[in-house]
Order: sequence, then C-alpha cells, then structure tokens
Amino acid sequence: MSNAILLISCPDQKGITSQITSFIFQNNGNIEHADQHIDFQTNTFFMRIEWSLKNFKIPEKDIRKRFSMLANQFKMSWTLHFTKDIPSAAIFASHSTHCLYDLLLRYKETQFKCEIPLIISNHSSVSKIAKTFGIKFIHLPKTPKNKKTIEKKEIALLKDANIELIILARYMQIFTNSFIKEFPSRMINIHHSFLPAFAGKNPYQQAYSRGVKIIGATSHYVTKELDAGPIIKQDTTRISHRDSLSDLKRKGQDLEKTVLSRAVRLHLERKILVYNNKTVIFD
Amino acid sequence: MSNAILLISCPDQKGITSQITSFIFQNNGNIEHADQHIDFQTNTFFMRIEWSLKNFKIPEKDIRKRFSMLANQFKMSWTLHFTKDIPSAAIFASHSTHCLYDLLLRYKETQFKCEIPLIISNHSSVSKIAKTFGIKFIHLPKTPKNKKTIEKKEIALLKDANIELIILARYMQIFTNSFIKEFPSRMINIHHSFLPAFAGKNPYQQAYSRGVKIIGATSHYVTKELDAGPIIKQDTTRISHRDSLSDLKRKGQDLEKTVLSRAVRLHLERKILVYNNKTVIFD
Amino acid sequence: MSNAILLISCPDQKGITSQITSFIFQNNGNIEHADQHIDFQTNTFFMRIEWSLKNFKIPEKDIRKRFSMLANQFKMSWTLHFTKDIPSAAIFASHSTHCLYDLLLRYKETQFKCEIPLIISNHSSVSKIAKTFGIKFIHLPKTPKNKKTIEKKEIALLKDANIELIILARYMQIFTNSFIKEFPSRMINIHHSFLPAFAGKNPYQQAYSRGVKIIGATSHYVTKELDAGPIIKQDTTRISHRDSLSDLKRKGQDLEKTVLSRAVRLHLERKILVYNNKTVIFD
Amino acid sequence: MSNAILLISCPDQKGITSQITSFIFQNNGNIEHADQHIDFQTNTFFMRIEWSLKNFKIPEKDIRKRFSMLANQFKMSWTLHFTKDIPSAAIFASHSTHCLYDLLLRYKETQFKCEIPLIISNHSSVSKIAKTFGIKFIHLPKTPKNKKTIEKKEIALLKDANIELIILARYMQIFTNSFIKEFPSRMINIHHSFLPAFAGKNPYQQAYSRGVKIIGATSHYVTKELDAGPIIKQDTTRISHRDSLSDLKRKGQDLEKTVLSRAVRLHLERKILVYNNKTVIFD
Repeated sequence: MSNAILLISCPDQKGITSQITSFIFQNNGNIEHADQHIDFQTNTFFMRIEWSLKNFKIPEKDIRKRFSMLANQFKMSWTLHFTKDIPSAAIFASHSTHCLYDLLLRYKETQFKCEIPLIISNHSSVSKIAKTFGIKFIHLPKTPKNKKTIEKKEIALLKDANIELIILARYMQIFTNSFIKEFPSRMINIHHSFLPAFAGKNPYQQAYSRGVKIIGATSHYVTKELDAGPIIKQDTTRISHRDSLSDLKRKGQDLEKTVLSRAVRLHLERKILVYNNKTVIFD
Repeated sequence: MSNAILLISCPDQKGITSQITSFIFQNNGNIEHADQHIDFQTNTFFMRIEWSLKNFKIPEKDIRKRFSMLANQFKMSWTLHFTKDIPSAAIFASHSTHCLYDLLLRYKETQFKCEIPLIISNHSSVSKIAKTFGIKFIHLPKTPKNKKTIEKKEIALLKDANIELIILARYMQIFTNSFIKEFPSRMINIHHSFLPAFAGKNPYQQAYSRGVKIIGATSHYVTKELDAGPIIKQDTTRISHRDSLSDLKRKGQDLEKTVLSRAVRLHLERKILVYNNKTVIFD
Repeated sequence: MSNAILLISCPDQKGITSQITSFIFQNNGNIEHADQHIDFQTNTFFMRIEWSLKNFKIPEKDIRKRFSMLANQFKMSWTLHFTKDIPSAAIFASHSTHCLYDLLLRYKETQFKCEIPLIISNHSSVSKIAKTFGIKFIHLPKTPKNKKTIEKKEIALLKDANIELIILARYMQIFTNSFIKEFPSRMINIHHSFLPAFAGKNPYQQAYSRGVKIIGATSHYVTKELDAGPIIKQDTTRISHRDSLSDLKRKGQDLEKTVLSRAVRLHLERKILVYNNKTVIFD
Repeated sequence: MSNAILLISCPDQKGITSQITSFIFQNNGNIEHADQHIDFQTNTFFMRIEWSLKNFKIPEKDIRKRFSMLANQFKMSWTLHFTKDIPSAAIFASHSTHCLYDLLLRYKETQFKCEIPLIISNHSSVSKIAKTFGIKFIHLPKTPKNKKTIEKKEIALLKDANIELIILARYMQIFTNSFIKEFPSRMINIHHSFLPAFAGKNPYQQAYSRGVKIIGATSHYVTKELDAGPIIKQDTTRISHRDSLSDLKRKGQDLEKTVLSRAVRLHLERKILVYNNKTVIFD
C-alpha cells in the first residue's frame, strides 16, 4: 500500500494547514507525518505531509487534479509523490571511487528507495565496479573540446532511462549551464570541503595550506555557479598538524561518503524543499 | 500579543491533525509552528502546535474549556500554554558553581523565557553569586538526618514562589520520592556522563578508570530512579590518554553547561513531551 | 628502506628518553617520530619512537639484541617493529557485512599496511564477498556444542597463515577464554554502542528503549570479559525521537565502519600501547 | 618547584632529540613531557619538552645561556619558559560580553596559569564586569580618527603592566599593523565562523544567507591580514533551517567561548608553535 507525500511552499496565510489536513481527512486519509516551517523573513510557508492511501477515497490518478484547486487558491508551489513509485537515479563517477562504492553498497542494502540503472564515467576503469553490482555502464570520456557533444549524449541517455536524480560521486567534471538547466534541483554533488570555504579545485590542498583544524564535506544541489548551490548536508572532522595531506584526504573521504549518501536519501524520501538557494530539510 | 501552544499526546487515529487545525482556523488563529510525530510501535500521536492569538475569536480564558471537548473526543493528554505567561524557575546549586553561573548569565542575556526568583543551596558560599544577580538566596544545609524536614521547607518555598521548573545545577543531593512526586517532569538535572554509562557517583572518575575515549553530559527529568529519568539532551567530547582526571572534569564542565541550558530552554519553550520514560523534542 | 618502531613501557625514571635517543643517534639513526607519555598516578613511562634505518650502524637482525641491554636496565616492556614487515590480518565476519566490505575496500585502497589472506565466517554467504576481493574464505559454522572444536580449527588456520591481527567485523560469536588467550591485544572487536553503555546483546534496541539522544560505536581489544577490553576508538552521532530502531542501526553502521577501521590502522601502525585495561594511542 | 619548558623549531637533522634530552639528563633533569613533530615537506623539526628542575644542576638563571650553545649548533628558533613564571594577560572587550565573562569565570576557577591585571574596552559598560572580578578597567573609546593615538596609549598601558598575551574577547575593533607588530604571536582573537569561511563582518549573517548546515568558531593569532592569522582552535555545531539568525548567534556563542578559552590555555601552557602561518599544537 502506497503513501502520498506533498511538498508545498507558498506565501503564508491563515488556514493553509487546516485546509490541507481537512482535504486529507475528509477523503479518509491517515496522516503519518506532517511537518511545517514558516520563514518569517519572507513570510513563506513550507510543508511536508505524508498520508496513507489505504481506503483513501480519491483514486491515486485523480489526487493531483483534486488537490490542484486547493493549491491554486493558496498559490502553492507543490509536488506530489507516491511511495510506491520508485524513481531512477544515475551515478556519474571518476577514478576516485570511494563514494561510488559506498552508494552501491548502500543501494544493495536497500538504504535507497530508488533504482540505479546507469553509471556514467569518463574513466573506463569504473566499468568493473558497475559490473560487480550488475549496473549498466557507459564510458563517455569528456574533454573541453567535446564536452557539449558528450553532454547531449548524456542527456539523451538519462532521459531514455527516465532518470530523476543525478548523483555526482566525485565526478570532477564541470557541467555546462545548458546541462544543469535540464535537471534543476535534481543533481546532487559532493564537495570535499565545508563550503563556502575551499570551493573549486583541490580543497584538501587548500585546507592543508591554510592550516585549519577541522575539515568538512558538503552535499548540495548543482546550480550554474560552481559549488554554490543549495546545501543539503555538511559534516566536519578534527585534524591536527600531524595530519599530512594524504591523511586529510583519507579522513575526508569518510565524511564525503556519509554526507553524499544522506543527501541522496533525503532527496529520495522527498524531504527536501529548495528555496532562495537554501534547503528546508524535513528530517 | 501572545501565542498559544498546545502539547498533545493520544492514541493515533484519523482526523486528529485536521480537527485540531480546523479548531484553530475556524476561530481565526494563524498557525506559526506545527510539528507532529507518531510512534508506530505504540500507535501514539504527539503534537506541538503554536498559533497567534491576534484576532483569535475565543478569549484566552475560554480556550481551555473550548478545546477540552475535542481533547476528550480523542482521549488526549494535553497542556495549553500562553507565551505571555512567564513561568518561574528555581535553581538548586552546590559549591560546584559553573552551571549556576552559566544559567544566570544566559538568564541575564534573556536566553530563558522565565523568571528566576530563587536559588537554594546547602552551601552558604553560593549566596554571593545570587546577590550579584539580584536573586533571593536560601541556605538550607541538608544532612541525611534532616533531609525530610528540609525538603518540606523547600516544597513550601517553591510553592510560595509559584515555581514551575526546578533546575538542579550540579546540586549533588538526592531527593526523596515524596519530593520528586510533587514536581513530575518539572525537575531538570544535569548528570556529568553520557547516561546510561556512569550513572551515580563520580562519573568522571568512572570514565577515567574505564579508559573511554569520549566523555559526555546528559540533562534529564528527575524520576524516582536515580539518573534514569527521560533524557532531554546529551553531548559528548573526545578525550585521550593525555587527559588527567582534572582535564576530564574541565572539558566535561563545558558540556554540562550547554547540555543543561539547552534542556531548560526546550522546557520553557514548551518543546518537550514526556512519554514512556523518553522525550519527544519538537526543536 | 625500512623504519624501526619501538613501543615501550616501564617505570618512570630519569634518563630514559635520553638513553633511548642516544642509542639511536650514536648508531646513526634519524628519529622521524617520537612521542612519550607519563602516567603520574602509576609512575609509568610510555614511548613510541620511530627512526629511519638508512645508514643505521646496527644490522636489522641485531637491533633487538643490542637494545635489550638498555631495555633490561630500565625494566621495559617493549616491542620492536620494522615498517617493511607487513603483518597478516584475518577477518571474522557474519551476515552483517557492512564492516567487512568497508575493511576490504580500504584494504584495496591500501589504507592498511597488512595482508589479509583469510576471512572466516559461520555464514557461507560471505564467501562471495571474499571471492570478489580474491581472499581465501573458510566457512566454519559454530554452535554452542561444537565451539571448542571449531575454535581449535580456527587457531590452527590462523597460526598456519601466520596471522598477527584478528579483526572481528561484527562477528557476533563469543570466543572462549582459551581462544582469547592465544591472541592477547591482537583481537580487535567493534561493539555497536558507546561502551560501557549497552554492552552485550542488541545495543541498538537497548539504546532505543532507553531513549538516548546520542548513539555510538566502540572498537576495543578483546579480553575475557565481554565488551570490557581496552578501548581503542569511539565515536558518536546524534539521534532524535524521529529515529526508528532501523534508523539507529543505519546511522550506527556508519560509526561502526570508521571506528573499526581506525582501530585497525592504529594497531598496524604500531601506535597502541595497552596497560591497565586502557590504551595509550600515539596518534 | 618549577618545571622548564623548551619550544624549539629548526631544520631537521640527526641527533637533535638525542642531544636535547642528553643535555637535560646529564644535568639531572627529569623529563615529564616530550613531543616532537617533523614537517617532511619543509624538513622542519619541532619540539616541546618539559622537565622538572628539582635537583637540576644548572641554576635557572643560567639555563638559557647554557642551552644556547646547543641551540646555535642546530640553528634553533627557541623559547624557554618556567612554569613558576606567571605571565600577565590583558583582555580587550566590547559590549558583546559572553566571552569576557567566560574567560573571567575560568580565570577565577584557576583554569588559566596567568594573571589578568587589565581589561580595556571602548565601552564603559564593561567596567562593571571588571569591577565584579576585581580587575583594573580602562575605557578607551576608539574612532577611525583617534585610533593611532588610542593605540599608543594602549601599547603604553600594556607594556607598563608587563602584558605578554592580549586576548581579544569579541573586541570588534581592527588594530593597525604597527600595533600588531608589537605583539607577534601574542594576540589571540576569536572569530565567529569556521575560517576561512565568512571572514570579516557579520559572519552569522553571512552563514544564514548562505544556508550552511554547520556553523563554527575559530581562535587564531592576529596578523596584519584580517582573520587570516595562524589558526589555533576551531569547533563547529549543527544548525537547521529552523534556526533563525538569533539562534545562530546564540549557538555560536557557546562555540566562541570554548574555542577562545582553549586557545588561551594552550598559549599559556606553552603548547603552541607558530610557523608558516600555521600552528603546531602539542596537546
């Protein structure tokens, strides 16, 4: 039996919660989770509400239409999801495979409510890992020259496979704006620093040179400005003068893995709302 | 202008959220915060809902009565609070005064929505601190022999001062069950370990002897079983073999201060629900 | 070119450091790392010292003998290691394979200075993972009845493979004292709680029932008392009332992996000294 | 009875540790702490060594001279300290007094091995706090116009009081280079962000706008480049979309207090070596 999940944002006003919950109750839905947030600075209302469709009076296929009247009245931005619909995710990987392995092992342990039918990399060596997990692998070596052409192929592949979420598992390549526009709030990247510190290249080298006592990792949605998209999750760990650059990398990798996988989980559980280049996380 | 806050727990069933929010909306209240939780193991529903009373149709003094019909229908345990009502808290302190100072400085900085009219201690030296902050001090030296008598005096003092919350700032003395029964879920203690490890006496000495690599602090409501009440907040910090027992105490004190003060804040903001010897924290 | 590492403990007295470093210097060694610690409670001296053997005047095979005179003079407990000697480690695993995978991936990424020639499990399903990583797998199903017999086989296998370190990657089975005695300070276990809290069975269930706000993981050397050996590494993470028992398990697994692998690394880098059922960690 | 502490850095070469420890041993000193570090990138040797002067053959007043021969031989940068010499520290404060209070309470609890004879502020309101703790207060209101003049007064005051360490407890004012040059590696500042993120003005506002999920605090030595000096200590704490700007400030203050006080402690215990705009912390 499926649950329905609504993610909503709109200008705050009286009666929103009441009307949404009444819509569910009057149609015999049982609310299992409900969380709301108001940003008083911008007077914006946010909500995540999940209810059981067992004995719900409106057939699944009609819920969207029936709810849209209410949504229009409150000028909502909203998305509706059903837990029985399993979205597809693709992973973009490079030769730095710790995040890739971590994602695939969690996938195998059913930590992610998704299918992963596709792994894309500019390194052919990744194919072996894909094979171990029984996932289709496409080798697409990118260069500055062929980037636009390759990206078109990638977009075609992703659309063919009905990919909803793109996971950049230390992919290293920068996408063009035209690619990014195709997948708004649907590309999750892991950056190996506590952003906004050490954006761009070689963040561990930057951290080492600066002599920080804490390093971090940040997962975020990709936007056209590099490493500047809405932050989903961050974590940090202590280091000392005894840690060499390779120690930083090793310790940082443990952060990268958990910070990326938790962002993916939050996205797939429909717990993230993006606004104002920030995220509201209903966890 | 005041807000109203409802803290609710009851058996889960359809329509609870809808009916509560409709009650507020139909009386012209604007919901500012709403958070719910269902414990699926025990099928229990929990909610914290806060709304503005600006233009609310029901006068404050009648809300309790009007809401009780709904509450009875759903067999709710519930409390109603108004943000304009400033509760009173008393602090019990000993010669270990870091938590006392910390609480009073936060109080002065208006971090706590309460009055602190009373400090009680079995050490007369505490009077000086109380004086600095302009708070009434009562010196009540307890011994095993006079404990029952002293506790009666304390209860009288607390009731006279209309104390809602008792904060045990490293008070060190164990209360009798008859005292504790007077203030259910209204006495917050700080224990200097990550409970349930190292309950009872000298937790830092216990931690040092065991050779743990992390120490902690725990704030909890006091129940009749020592150090076993519902946990509100915990925090931990790393230690190493280089840390002596006095280092553990020093580092632990920083945890104690934040862990106690955050529990006090959560209580005063009506963000804690107690059930099943655990807490639901709506933060 | 190899380095030599000395791990030393002895009663503290004047001149120890001076004499050790003079021994190295006069034989033309270059000290790369030196760290000492004194436990003033027991007046015990601890040291880890590592030096380059490039142009060292004493041949490797004679260092032990030559140093033993100094060692005897100060009544040292000591071990000597050479970084070019790569020890062998065996992993004991169960059907809960997240730690096993994590260890093997780190092994593959050369995070561990050891060979892993052997995986033992009472679950035949583990063989597939062993095969993927090209490691010999032995299936030894234990029951209370056959435990002594099986353990004898295990000891034989471990000695045949010249295993120095035994890693219990969520192995779940309790060893007999006679097995443990064979490998003093050479068996590392991961326990899925912040010990000493929640020792024994089902620590996540225990943590869930108690309503703690922080969970943890602990790696420790195995001693005959269950979950009570010298602690090597601990880590913790926050949870809330929203976390179900399965969330605790999932979040805890991330701790288990890093806490176990860091203990293994510390052991292999000869950074751990055990005394008094505690550890001195030279990191 | 005093201990002596040497802080040393020099080009790495064979025999340094041996010769230093022999110097101590041959003069009948008992080493209580010794820690060394080599930066293999720059081939630099760092050491902190502490020994008891009980029965030490060289009189205190001659140690410097006697050690300088060895120091010259190895081209050491070095400082010698005696634990019985209690240095003096001055605090610069503003109207944001949480760090000031925290320092003074720790001072009162004898967490700092120093005297604090002087508090300077551009806010006269601070005088009351200084008075409570019995510390001389100087009110020096700075403006862009009078900054140079005031700084001259400050320098005179600090030198008169024989101040070794200047603690900027959220002082808010930027010093001129000529002031900073007078106190190299002797001015500790607390910045309310995890540097290098959010340097400069209003770091909490910057963090709030960026939507980070973690905030931090950084203590560092002051150099002429704003918020870019050698980092001594950092700490971080989680925040969420529910945290308002004032929540960030409140939670950040707890970090600021511990991060500043720990840096002060490390400095006073002679555990910090500065090189290459970084710190080596022997803790």
